[in-house]
Amino acid sequence: MTEKIQVGIAGYGNLGRGVESAIYQNNDMELVGVFTRRAPEDLTLLNADIPVYSIHNIEDFKEKIDVLILCGGSKNDLPEQGPALAKHFTTIDSFDTHADIPAYFEKVDAAAKPNHKTAIISVGWDPGMFSLNRLFGESILPEGTTYTFYGKGLSQGHSDAVRRVPGVKNAVQYTIPNEEAVNKVRSGELPELTTREEHTRECFVVLEEGADPKDVKEAIVTMPNYFTNHDTTVHFISEEELKRDHSTMPHGGFVIRSGKTGEDTNQVMEYTLKLDSNPGFTSSVLVTYARAAYRLQQQGDYGAKTVFDIAPGLLSPKSAATLRKEML
Amino acid sequence: MTEKIQVGIAGYGNLGRGVESAIYQNNDMELVGVFTRRAPEDLTLLNADIPVYSIHNIEDFKEKIDVLILCGGSKNDLPEQGPALAKHFTTIDSFDTHADIPAYFEKVDAAAKPNHKTAIISVGWDPGMFSLNRLFGESILPEGTTYTFYGKGLSQGHSDAVRRVPGVKNAVQYTIPNEEAVNKVRSGELPELTTREEHTRECFVVLEEGADPKDVKEAIVTMPNYFTNHDTTVHFISEEELKRDHSTMPHGGFVIRSGKTGEDTNQVMEYTLKLDSNPGFTSSVLVTYARAAYRLQQQGDYGAKTVFDIAPGLLSPKSAATLRKEML
Repeated sequence: MTEKIQVGIAGYGNLGRGVESAIYQNNDMELVGVFTRRAPEDLTLLNADIPVYSIHNIEDFKEKIDVLILCGGSKNDLPEQGPALAKHFTTIDSFDTHADIPAYFEKVDAAAKPNHKTAIISVGWDPGMFSLNRLFGESILPEGTTYTFYGKGLSQGHSDAVRRVPGVKNAVQYTIPNEEAVNKVRSGELPELTTREEHTRECFVVLEEGADPKDVKEAIVTMPNYFTNHDTTVHFISEEELKRDHSTMPHGGFVIRSGKTGEDTNQVMEYTLKLDSNPGFTSSVLVTYARAAYRLQQQGDYGAKTVFDIAPGLLSPKSAATLRKEML
Repeated sequence: MTEKIQVGIAGYGNLGRGVESAIYQNNDMELVGVFTRRAPEDLTLLNADIPVYSIHNIEDFKEKIDVLILCGGSKNDLPEQGPALAKHFTTIDSFDTHADIPAYFEKVDAAAKPNHKTAIISVGWDPGMFSLNRLFGESILPEGTTYTFYGKGLSQGHSDAVRRVPGVKNAVQYTIPNEEAVNKVRSGELPELTTREEHTRECFVVLEEGADPKDVKEAIVTMPNYFTNHDTTVHFISEEELKRDHSTMPHGGFVIRSGKTGEDTNQVMEYTLKLDSNPGFTSSVLVTYARAAYRLQQQGDYGAKTVFDIAPGLLSPKSAATLRKEML
């Protein structure tokens, strides 16, 4: 029997919990432990048999962990943790601040490469699977246009923005792709779409007692950057309705490449995700790429990588020969 | 300026013509010539300035061609040509007899590797892009089911079968995915589908003079393997209607992976192709992977490969840093 890949988790929020769950779906992996900045005894894992450690002691586990999955946030955790941990571990993360990826890549690469470690950054669905489909689309159909639509899905950033409006007790915001625009793109037309035409926004808001719904609505739809460029609908609901109907984190979207080959021949490639749980799916992508990180580390292919650098066959527990036989 | 990748085309049917057209869409490539078994003077290329040579003289071009794109058929051409040409050239082909891929891979590998050549086999959309999406689906969502639907598209094999029916002068057959089944799968249900439930078949038939439509229809719908397991509709049309309405080769389909993460959380990944020209799209995929074959050859990564072995970043003319900046 082959030995199982020994995996560690650094950080235990929605993403960490999703990664724990995904590891149990992969028979060639074993969870060594969860590392946290909180008091270890405060964490309740899905599997109570897995040990929880303080992240301050993580260097003691250098020899025991094959791949460390970094489950911190892109804003405050990863910019520090990514390069620091890539010095000592084979790592994988979901760094998703698109504009900062080139700088983050360089920092992680500078930490990993001289220490003979492999580090795959920015794994998930966007950046991640959506990025791959943008790349496939543009490469295969050089004469064409790529469209990325999001939703229907809960946007954390926009929900937070609505919650900051005076008079709002609680709220969620959904980003919704405009069906008419999507259908135009799917048909092979190459429409030029404004931001307003691509997505609409829908808010479900619980008011503070005494707040005026008209004022709150006005404050939301006129909020610069977040809502002024979109058609926004605001629904007022009770706290109970919010809890009952809006407590999951669905998301998804489409990447569509529409292009031409030969003379006036339309070709449309579309990649769609329909996710009941955004962190649950991101976690599953992370765990799959952890297998690839482990293999690259074994092969001596060190330094920072992205999904663009990973041959897809490295993602599967199956051998190359089995993949050719069963899946090609 | 970087030198352009020097490309050759072996075989000039629908696929070869598509490859010629696709090369002109890629500024980092240059077409050296087309190689044919026919009399070179009988070929009319899209660009009359490109030379046509007899395939018997192809070994004279060993130093002049960086990548040779094999555009022969999987049944009669590639089993011979693939291994023979992989001894002398970096090659790429669209070998698509799924059951024979493992044996073909071994033969091409045995020819290419000792001669320090790279050969990517079975490139296109199925095998090819669909295979990649089956692999991504199963790897990311290990607890789930993968569904492949084809169409609406013209099936060459089934059209040929209908044309062999006595009384049929000419015919085309379309494979059509069953919308109800597709929607069930998309919704996150994991239906067990019979062949009949997955696809229906639609035939457009031109009768020989005097043929009895009832007999012809009966002969088609009861044809073993081809039609008995499907609900088949037969339309009788005139030769003019066939020429006017059914002379293009559209195709496409979906790969859907439906699975669960965590407890009862549905996640659905879908990859869709809607192709106005099946050979036009396959050609474009071949040309993109030709770029990867060239790069692997430069890197000294020899032997037979499939799409599973190719890091997606190798497909784009853009540098890794540019891809991270623009597309991740």
